[in-house]
This record gives sequence, structure tokens and C-alpha cells, in this order.
Amino acid sequence: MPQGQPEQVPADGLTTRRRRNRPLTIVHTGEMKGKSTAAFGLALRGWNQGWNIGVFQFVKSAKWKVGEESALLALGGLHTSQGLGGPVEWHKMGEGWSWTRKQGTDEDHEAAAVEGWREIQRRLAAQTHDLYVLDEFTYPMKWGWIDVDEVVATLRDRPGHQHVVITGRDAAPALIHAADLVTEMTKIKHPMDAGQKGQRGIEW
Amino acid sequence: MPQGQPEQVPADGLTTRRRRNRPLTIVHTGEMKGKSTAAFGLALRGWNQGWNIGVFQFVKSAKWKVGEESALLALGGLHTSQGLGGPVEWHKMGEGWSWTRKQGTDEDHEAAAVEGWREIQRRLAAQTHDLYVLDEFTYPMKWGWIDVDEVVATLRDRPGHQHVVITGRDAAPALIHAADLVTEMTKIKHPMDAGQKGQRGIEW
Repeated sequence: MPQGQPEQVPADGLTTRRRRNRPLTIVHTGEMKGKSTAAFGLALRGWNQGWNIGVFQFVKSAKWKVGEESALLALGGLHTSQGLGGPVEWHKMGEGWSWTRKQGTDEDHEAAAVEGWREIQRRLAAQTHDLYVLDEFTYPMKWGWIDVDEVVATLRDRPGHQHVVITGRDAAPALIHAADLVTEMTKIKHPMDAGQKGQRGIEW
Repeated sequence: MPQGQPEQVPADGLTTRRRRNRPLTIVHTGEMKGKSTAAFGLALRGWNQGWNIGVFQFVKSAKWKVGEESALLALGGLHTSQGLGGPVEWHKMGEGWSWTRKQGTDEDHEAAAVEGWREIQRRLAAQTHDLYVLDEFTYPMKWGWIDVDEVVATLRDRPGHQHVVITGRDAAPALIHAADLVTEMTKIKHPMDAGQKGQRGIEW
């Protein structure tokens, strides 16, 4: 556990306070599923700080994350009803994105992914959220639907103090280079290897 | 994302349904901090299933997990007040363990760790929880305070359908061998390397 003792002090001219409060770009990559789970764990912590949390799922099937969605939206509800923690929004590409309300328009996955990214760019410009979870966002970049360099430039130039967590396998080298914190979730052992099937509460 | 297609079917005589519902021993190890965060993310998912969640923190300082504690206890409160999700208990060694109410008796960390483990054994025998998060539990094993073989035997022989997640660096080989699912969180890049200090909401 890091105890706040940096290995070196950078010559960036920032005070410790400024440096401590720098907005972070975080990437969870690797083959294991802890990537998204750890991102939602970060959202838990942000909620407790009163942060405005925005989750954006870049996958067609959202079936696997219903537990985290229900729990985080329940926490967002506590913000609304009792002023606890921060507000939470959860948007899914697979249902035509929550903000558009155009159901069933997601036949074209590439167009839907790009539309999601444009909305995120607008929100970053407007400083809508304190923490963005861009779940499985590496895939539209990997498939060439969204330009990695544009993502990197948008993140680099974002105003204010907005943290961004991106999850998914095969994160692009340019994204890893631009990120502040990159964790790889590596498989040592998985029950599927031994013929275990996915189970409720653990896998989704 | 595993789609429920096992690589092989084991000759264990279990039906798919039995195999799907086997209780899991999960280990999150490695040098990066996503270990605990991903475990609390799993607890989110379990909460949504209505599971009884028990978190046990085997570290003296609990300062770093206050966000997850507040958020998960808020979810547990929703179970109490509105019947949503499942109940949540959170016990910290650093404060003399919540169930004993003997504050300030934790001067002897080894005795406190053993006392925590004995309680977990009792709860496993009584099938108290559906999901146990034993946070930083690898350390008392590493330091020789708690016998790894006893932990492995207790987990192997636990009754019913209780999932157990153990986090911490340097998980013992015997524990990894006994576990069903082991993920290593590997550092690719960390802002502390560049002199960034820990910050609220991200580090605690």
C-alpha cells in the first residue's frame, strides 16, 4: 500500500497540493474480468466523496454488469433522497444510450459507439462528471471505430478536474502512454479452465 | 468475456447446475491496489443478489478503504430500510473488531489477527454470510501468524454455499493451489512513480 512517499519528485513546477489533485486517466486492461469490477469499486469510493459519477458501457450486451448497475444506481438514489454521496448516471450503448431515448437505434454498433464518444466529449467539455467510467471502451478503439489519437488528445486537453477510467483488453499503446495509472489484470487461475460455468453473483 | 462455454468438462460427476453453483474461493494478489477494489466490486454484485456480505479487514489502518466501507454500509442500510439487496457487515481489526466491542485491545496485532480468523471459522461453520471479503488476509499468513494449511482446510471443508474472496500481496502457493479463481493485479504504470501523491477518492 503506497504510503504517500513518492519515489521521485518531478520537476513540473507544481506544488504537492496541485500535484495531489491532478485529474487522472486510469486504464484497467489485461485478460481477466477484474478490470470493470475494480473500476466500479473506484466509483464506490468516488460516490462517498460526493462525486458526480458517469458510467458509459460500450458493449452491446449489458447483462453481465446488472449487479453493479443496480447497486451504483441505488447509491445514486441515496444522493437524491437523502443527500448522501454523489449522483450516479449509467448509460448503455446496447439500449441506444440512455440520454438519447432512441430505443432500438443501435443496429449500427460503430455509429452507436461514435455517438457515445461524441457525448462523452461534450460532457468532458462541460465538466459534467467528476469520474467517468468508460467500460469496455478499448474495443471501439481496437476495431478502428474511434480514433485513439483523438481520445488521447481529448483526455489531455480536458478542462477542470475530471477523472477518467477506461477498461477493456488490448488497450492501445498510445492510450497506455497517455494514462497516469495502468493496471493489468492477469489470469493465474480461472474456474472456467476446469469446466466451471459462470454463476450468478460472481460472473454477473 | 466468458460466454459460459467451458474449455473442458470435468469428470467430477456433478451436474452443470451443481457445478455452476459451487462456492468459490477467489484470490486477488499482485502488487497493484485493484485487489481490494475489485473485491468490493464483487460485493456490489453480491449485494444486488441479496447476499449476506461480510467484510473483514486485516490491517491496522483502515483509513484507505473508508469510501468503500461507507458505500457498502449505505447499501446494507437500503436492505434494512427498504428490503433492497442484501445485508452488509464490515469489521475492522484496527479497531478491535466490531463484534467484540473491546476497543483498544488490538495492541497485539498477531493475537487480533488470530481472533479475527477464529471468528471467521465460526461464521463459516454457522454459514453466516454468502460472501466473505477477507481483505489483506494474505499478510497474517505471510507473517506466520495464521497457518496457511489451516486456512486451506477450513475453506475446503466449509459447509453450504459460501463464497470467499481473499486479497493481499504474496498469496501463499498453497492458497493459490486451493483457490478456484486467482487474479494478479500487475503494475504497468503508477503515478507515484512520477512523484504524484495519493489523492482523495482515488487512493482512499
